[in-house]
Amino acid sequence: MNSNNLVHLESDYNNGAHEAVLQHLIETNDERTQSYGDDRFSNSARELIREVCEASEAEIFFLAGGTQTNATILDCVLQPYEGVLCCDTAHINVHESGAVEFTGHKVIALPGEDGKLSADTLREWLDAYFVDETAEHMVRPGAVYITFPTELGTLYTADELKALSQICHSRDLLLYVDGARLAYGLAASPDVTLPFLARTADIFYIGGTKCGALCGEAVVFPKGNTPSHMLSRIKRHGSLLAKSRVVGVQFDALFSQTEKWSMFNGQCSMIIYLALGRHAVQLAMRLRRLFVERLGYKPFIDSPTNQQFYVIPNSDLDALRQHIGFEVWCPVSPTHTACRFVTSWATSEEEIETLEKELVNNL
Amino acid sequence: MNSNNLVHLESDYNNGAHEAVLQHLIETNDERTQSYGDDRFSNSARELIREVCEASEAEIFFLAGGTQTNATILDCVLQPYEGVLCCDTAHINVHESGAVEFTGHKVIALPGEDGKLSADTLREWLDAYFVDETAEHMVRPGAVYITFPTELGTLYTADELKALSQICHSRDLLLYVDGARLAYGLAASPDVTLPFLARTADIFYIGGTKCGALCGEAVVFPKGNTPSHMLSRIKRHGSLLAKSRVVGVQFDALFSQTEKWSMFNGQCSMIIYLALGRHAVQLAMRLRRLFVERLGYKPFIDSPTNQQFYVIPNSDLDALRQHIGFEVWCPVSPTHTACRFVTSWATSEEEIETLEKELVNNL
Amino acid sequence: MNSNNLVHLESDYNNGAHEAVLQHLIETNDERTQSYGDDRFSNSARELIREVCEASEAEIFFLAGGTQTNATILDCVLQPYEGVLCCDTAHINVHESGAVEFTGHKVIALPGEDGKLSADTLREWLDAYFVDETAEHMVRPGAVYITFPTELGTLYTADELKALSQICHSRDLLLYVDGARLAYGLAASPDVTLPFLARTADIFYIGGTKCGALCGEAVVFPKGNTPSHMLSRIKRHGSLLAKSRVVGVQFDALFSQTEKWSMFNGQCSMIIYLALGRHAVQLAMRLRRLFVERLGYKPFIDSPTNQQFYVIPNSDLDALRQHIGFEVWCPVSPTHTACRFVTSWATSEEEIETLEKELVNNL
Amino acid sequence: MNSNNLVHLESDYNNGAHEAVLQHLIETNDERTQSYGDDRFSNSARELIREVCEASEAEIFFLAGGTQTNATILDCVLQPYEGVLCCDTAHINVHESGAVEFTGHKVIALPGEDGKLSADTLREWLDAYFVDETAEHMVRPGAVYITFPTELGTLYTADELKALSQICHSRDLLLYVDGARLAYGLAASPDVTLPFLARTADIFYIGGTKCGALCGEAVVFPKGNTPSHMLSRIKRHGSLLAKSRVVGVQFDALFSQTEKWSMFNGQCSMIIYLALGRHAVQLAMRLRRLFVERLGYKPFIDSPTNQQFYVIPNSDLDALRQHIGFEVWCPVSPTHTACRFVTSWATSEEEIETLEKELVNNL
Repeated sequence: MNSNNLVHLESDYNNGAHEAVLQHLIETNDERTQSYGDDRFSNSARELIREVCEASEAEIFFLAGGTQTNATILDCVLQPYEGVLCCDTAHINVHESGAVEFTGHKVIALPGEDGKLSADTLREWLDAYFVDETAEHMVRPGAVYITFPTELGTLYTADELKALSQICHSRDLLLYVDGARLAYGLAASPDVTLPFLARTADIFYIGGTKCGALCGEAVVFPKGNTPSHMLSRIKRHGSLLAKSRVVGVQFDALFSQTEKWSMFNGQCSMIIYLALGRHAVQLAMRLRRLFVERLGYKPFIDSPTNQQFYVIPNSDLDALRQHIGFEVWCPVSPTHTACRFVTSWATSEEEIETLEKELVNNL
Repeated sequence: MNSNNLVHLESDYNNGAHEAVLQHLIETNDERTQSYGDDRFSNSARELIREVCEASEAEIFFLAGGTQTNATILDCVLQPYEGVLCCDTAHINVHESGAVEFTGHKVIALPGEDGKLSADTLREWLDAYFVDETAEHMVRPGAVYITFPTELGTLYTADELKALSQICHSRDLLLYVDGARLAYGLAASPDVTLPFLARTADIFYIGGTKCGALCGEAVVFPKGNTPSHMLSRIKRHGSLLAKSRVVGVQFDALFSQTEKWSMFNGQCSMIIYLALGRHAVQLAMRLRRLFVERLGYKPFIDSPTNQQFYVIPNSDLDALRQHIGFEVWCPVSPTHTACRFVTSWATSEEEIETLEKELVNNL
Repeated sequence: MNSNNLVHLESDYNNGAHEAVLQHLIETNDERTQSYGDDRFSNSARELIREVCEASEAEIFFLAGGTQTNATILDCVLQPYEGVLCCDTAHINVHESGAVEFTGHKVIALPGEDGKLSADTLREWLDAYFVDETAEHMVRPGAVYITFPTELGTLYTADELKALSQICHSRDLLLYVDGARLAYGLAASPDVTLPFLARTADIFYIGGTKCGALCGEAVVFPKGNTPSHMLSRIKRHGSLLAKSRVVGVQFDALFSQTEKWSMFNGQCSMIIYLALGRHAVQLAMRLRRLFVERLGYKPFIDSPTNQQFYVIPNSDLDALRQHIGFEVWCPVSPTHTACRFVTSWATSEEEIETLEKELVNNL
Repeated sequence: MNSNNLVHLESDYNNGAHEAVLQHLIETNDERTQSYGDDRFSNSARELIREVCEASEAEIFFLAGGTQTNATILDCVLQPYEGVLCCDTAHINVHESGAVEFTGHKVIALPGEDGKLSADTLREWLDAYFVDETAEHMVRPGAVYITFPTELGTLYTADELKALSQICHSRDLLLYVDGARLAYGLAASPDVTLPFLARTADIFYIGGTKCGALCGEAVVFPKGNTPSHMLSRIKRHGSLLAKSRVVGVQFDALFSQTEKWSMFNGQCSMIIYLALGRHAVQLAMRLRRLFVERLGYKPFIDSPTNQQFYVIPNSDLDALRQHIGFEVWCPVSPTHTACRFVTSWATSEEEIETLEKELVNNL
């Protein structure tokens, strides 16, 4: 239900929760459970995640939000004197109000390409660092942070991730994957899957807030490689939920099967989390066809995921705003502006159909 | 619904949410909103809280949990070189895994009495501090932290709070009230109300997690006395929810009226949050009559709130465990043990009735 | 040279450096050296310290001051979620402006006796901690901090230190000994020596600032048990001196032999550092005889070291102030005040002789 | 006295102290003083610094080293949510092991030119930051850090500093000048003086360690703009020297007049600190003439100060190493290498003369 006729493509965190999540919250509400992460819903969700990740040793923690997760977990896995490498557009470098630095670690930003850190860039930096005679006076790299998909909607290929992983492990660095929008990345990638991530990354998180949950992220240590005393570490960061079931129930729903949910009719049974990603990406691709083929807009970044970026003639902006809620990204010329359009699990086929009709007629 | 026949009195955070909260989550789920605290539900909840607090200037922030709230907010309001005074049993001193120290501040613990910090203890410590010639080498006190109700279920009187407040203000200290269980404290107190708190404390938080919400706490700066750049400060602590509505919706429900909710039948219309507290305290008082008058147990601490502590003969423990889930607190003699029994908004009259019947017959 | 006729017993850090230290600074001044801890004077001092400690594996770091040393080293050896146990009067708990908490660690203060932490107190606290079901929510103890001598001038016996060490090691805690005034403690103790400390403590520091140096403390990891990347860790705390020789030269002098220095005439050759301690303690004992036997003052604390505490009749205070600079400690009754009198390596026999004559005549 | 025949130009912190400093340490050694910054030598040095800075309101603090000073002071003046802007080669960004991040602040590095941050670069970044709608999610800039001279030996002109200062003040930022090598910068600059710095910067420090002292830096708040409770703040960082005279005496010497010191014979009376800078820069300019005019080397960076950088043919490196101790900076081509040669207050005319003779003959 929208308060106006706009199709809202401003972000993927402006809706409530997917109905499967909401329903599970409702049906489990009266059950009394343990707390601080040991409730039966969190445990059930962990088991489901282990299965789909094909990682029986995986240890999983549920936190409330993305910045909290990045700052808490990076601080838990880094040695005090270590920093974290990332590309310049990385969320931890730009948009977390210094949450990683608040925990005492330097964010070491390297030049990125379309939101990605290349293996070459990483290797060159590390090669230079490890022969520098003053390295003891510099912040030692302890982990590499990447996002999948990136802040610009782009994706690493499986080969690119393997290359990063190999470089990391050759230098005793941890590869940390921020999956705030993981559902959309998995849906769009031809070769990156949860089992692949579990084999390739040292830590990753499965984003809930932007992918169908009310709140919550699931941090996965796929090889049972959790630091000791993790509960105390998380609580010390203020990141331990007393009533942990609130996130556990949601992931228990997100990682169950699609059968009984109407929006997935016609699909064979699959994990809801993955189905939500597929749904949003399909709509994003319809949007792309509309923008590129019918309206003649050029992509600003070539994104295969739910975040779409187009170069819009300034003369079209007002007309577009009559139909879509979206975000101005940056000016690209005196006459054109890059804009971001975000589909999500909550975007409906009807909304995109409406846009198709209205925009073609009015632009 | 319990998985066994026990009446669960282990804690007040082992249930889901009150039905009014759940219902509001359901009915608002499809509405698209702003984020990062500026959604319409958070704004509506703020307005309701301002009204019931009679504090039109109040500024209100919603965070996910209690330890997070204490650590984030104390760090935001303290100067870097300042510490926080509290009594020895205070939650921040004992049970937060050092979350306040993680932010760089000393927790200065003074002797408490039944979980309370007395004005005399506070005044004496401050008098000594401010004449100490080495005070510059000591951590300067910047705030006083108290809990209402305390970790031991006890309550400050309005006069006691006023006395603490006056001492604080005479020394330029902030009075911070942790209201993790505020609903139960307000219900049990003869003279402390939300408007009183808003006049007397500099910062307090209205606990949701233990008082009917799935998660979330509402921090109140009653005099518009929020530190600058608060959103950045909160985000830096990893405490800013992107999809802020998740807590906003819950407080919007908790601070609405009781009329349409069946559990409050027969009560005149009142704020749900306050009604939930009243409900739990009434049941706690029935439990007290049962334990003291009919079973002859002595209170371990004289608590008027939803946390009840009794000295149980060890010979009764096994029998009690057949009927109640509770927590062993500490041994008090070779033959007796102090135990904690916690009612909550989710405890039902039927459960207490059942106990009344069963325990009198079997003990 | 004093600016007046007072004998200055206010503190042991109000003079420059012992002449042996000063002379070594002068004679090495023109030599060019390496930096950041790798200069030849630091290395020579390390070798001397290893020898006198009978600890060939010992690793030694030179820092500029005591609070810096405590905060830096404790942060380097503690896990992030660990705190440090100490007694309530401990320097880190009272007089370091929260420097340990600044690094994110809780200082857990236990009741002390005359400035000492007893094995019983420690054992009881640990026994309770390790059976507490909520221990994960509490700060985990990682080290025990003691001072030798204590802030009140008292000393642990070798047996007491062994008992603390055994408890620590049975619980995987590190025993850290703050030796800001170590020279005076070693001189006064019948059984604690540097080799004993090196066997019994996990980390200790040999205080320079109060024991003959201009500045500087030598941190000893007696069993080669330094955390990895220690230089980076120390620099990160701002505690790494570029021109490290400034402290290295001083310890190189302090741990050389006494022969050529006039103040030690008649003594057989010994380590200057130890000789300075002996000198100050001998004068402290003369002061004690003067105060107790001839003036009839009672000790406030029974200290065998260079810090002496006496209960002075208030009627004598003004007269005393004509002859001695000292520090008022605390009132003990309406008519009497505890005062502290501190001898040091810089106090001369002549000064104490003068006092003996003047005080007996005038009081 | 060198242990070999090399002229040591590796760094400016490999010698002891200038004789005036050493002599003042000797002659004041027996005087008893106050401590923690309130000793008479620190106070005298402050008065001398105020005079030469023509800043009667200036407040001055003495710390032990450069990294300590940067991290401590920046943390004291920044709001918790603020970061510090600097250019990419800045010492705080590269060579302090993350000491600023350890205090919780982001170092925001902008592209530099020859070690300098240009007003245009700064202005553009700030203009973009302050119109960014997501600025609340980014680290807010609180100060600009520059070095004078820079890490690459270059200097800002007075006009450049004024421009930076104006931009800072238009955005409520503090301009902080790291003067680790300030003596050399002042000697080489045609228009930047201590009074100019005191008028133009909000905080600067006068480096001692690299400019004639054994250790120590003098932090100047030229407009009396010290944060409150500064002593506690400094101690909390472990940066407060108990025996503060150790640095106070040194600056008391460095800011006295040159008359009685032989090395300045023939010069009219001037401040020793400035004279030491002039001495080193004069020798650096002789070195430049030798390298450029007689040996035909090209400057790698055009530095007017005591750090000189030249592009050396690899075939000359071994021969050079027979005569000079220097530092390899970076390769510039397969056949050439950039090297750094640093003169200091301790470099003698004789050493440079020797080089002139030997190098011309042997290269």
